[in-house]
Amino acid sequence: MTSPHFTDRLLTAIDARRAPCTVALDPVYENLPAAVRESASPLDAIRRFAARVLTIIAPIVPSVKINSAYFERYYDEGVGLYHELVRAASALGLVVIGDVKRGDVGHTAEMYAKAQLARPDAPGVDASHTPDAVTISGYFGLDGAKPFIDTAVRDQRGLFVLVRTSNPSAAVIQDVPTVDGRKVHEIVAGEVARWAEDPRTMGARGYSCVGAVVATRNKEDAARIRGAMPRSIFLVPGYGAQGGTAEDFRPYFKADGTGAIIAAGRSVIFANERREYQGMTWEQAVEAACRAFAEDVGRLR
Amino acid sequence: MTSPHFTDRLLTAIDARRAPCTVALDPVYENLPAAVRESASPLDAIRRFAARVLTIIAPIVPSVKINSAYFERYYDEGVGLYHELVRAASALGLVVIGDVKRGDVGHTAEMYAKAQLARPDAPGVDASHTPDAVTISGYFGLDGAKPFIDTAVRDQRGLFVLVRTSNPSAAVIQDVPTVDGRKVHEIVAGEVARWAEDPRTMGARGYSCVGAVVATRNKEDAARIRGAMPRSIFLVPGYGAQGGTAEDFRPYFKADGTGAIIAAGRSVIFANERREYQGMTWEQAVEAACRAFAEDVGRLR
Repeated sequence: MTSPHFTDRLLTAIDARRAPCTVALDPVYENLPAAVRESASPLDAIRRFAARVLTIIAPIVPSVKINSAYFERYYDEGVGLYHELVRAASALGLVVIGDVKRGDVGHTAEMYAKAQLARPDAPGVDASHTPDAVTISGYFGLDGAKPFIDTAVRDQRGLFVLVRTSNPSAAVIQDVPTVDGRKVHEIVAGEVARWAEDPRTMGARGYSCVGAVVATRNKEDAARIRGAMPRSIFLVPGYGAQGGTAEDFRPYFKADGTGAIIAAGRSVIFANERREYQGMTWEQAVEAACRAFAEDVGRLR
Repeated sequence: MTSPHFTDRLLTAIDARRAPCTVALDPVYENLPAAVRESASPLDAIRRFAARVLTIIAPIVPSVKINSAYFERYYDEGVGLYHELVRAASALGLVVIGDVKRGDVGHTAEMYAKAQLARPDAPGVDASHTPDAVTISGYFGLDGAKPFIDTAVRDQRGLFVLVRTSNPSAAVIQDVPTVDGRKVHEIVAGEVARWAEDPRTMGARGYSCVGAVVATRNKEDAARIRGAMPRSIFLVPGYGAQGGTAEDFRPYFKADGTGAIIAAGRSVIFANERREYQGMTWEQAVEAACRAFAEDVGRLR
């Protein structure tokens, strides 16, 4: 029997699909294929589109990352759809990452952990109503992360703490050198690495349920963070955005080919907009782009 | 006619109530007065409780801060109640701060700004479906804040960027000294201060719609941040939590008595648990505690 620990489930799924990756489901109504946009309402169109994307990608990739913002944009109805898609993705066998980037302290952090990560305790609510893992802020230190860590340990779930983001202005704060010679994001990395050493968080394959979001485009920084966080799986966004290839993501992996999952979003879900997939239906384009993505990053294993 | 700029509305409301403060509405089912807990479901109990609290505090304080986590905990239904209470608070004349602490970059940040702060653009959805201002993360630098700033400028709303949080482990990251002599949170403060100098963001009374959450318990840090951020109103949580008084919050204010709003939560909304209010109904306890809070912080003006 497979261990139910989050990282063991994730690594098993990666092995089964031979691809250390996740598809980012960030649906924007205005970008949906025209045929789908003819649905009744924007939210219905997104529902149809997202449900189709899930069935297309589930046999190809191990995981999907569902981005809460794109659903919150439709208020409570959108949040209802978010949970519906989390359940649907889980039923299709995908490891589901809720990209929620919540962050707070104390009792509020506990509430966010309950809301976004914990196995639901309400009667009649399925365990897969919430995702296998979520993204959270690291700026608060351990107080902000602890409720998520405790929840992950108890409910066999995971978390990815924001260490270094990919946006241009990130450097203005995250790369500032501190007096001990490390950059600010390395201070955060060191903290998260310490949390990931907690034996309660450890899976059978040596990875903690405490992972990290690491998205620097600086290869030396990536290698340094990789070295500093041996127990954490990295969630690395940005594939396909700037026309790079899997090779650019090599520094996020350990020598044994484990330690990271690469996320691709628009380049897969809106593949029908790409020149190389013209002449296909939008579903065919998504499938072809997803296969190409999985194959490319599969080389990193 | 009053300027519709967020800070002008807030400052006018503070003057009218003679109290630079906000009540933090963080309802926890288990802590509700027994009489309210007899309602049908936890969410119904929270609805009844929160609606009553709003009517009690609206004549006393200028503002309410509604904490999204306590509603997200009930998934989409809870989010529906969050928006219902935002509208109710607004109808009662309260300046409404949505404590959502969202943070992301690029297109996702735009989606969060639409979801949480923007005047709704859907037909039939009231402008007060979203709050007057929200709290956001500052770790991403300007890329993360810009969609919120642009939205605030366009829709006359505001934002409070997390600069320094109050939790014990915050120091491990936020107080790390950088090579230019400033602590990490001062780097964030400097960035936010720069955004707040943007003339588009400025209200008639000299404050920008770009505010900050500042909650250090170190008075020297507070004074230093106050000096570094002349254009920002500070949202300062923590009143009543450690038994302090208004005087402890003096360093967050400018000499003219403007520049900050102090938040109190449990000590007001769960006042029925406090010894000094025994013998009152829970509503009387909330009213008495709210008046005492407003009067105490009123001395800072």
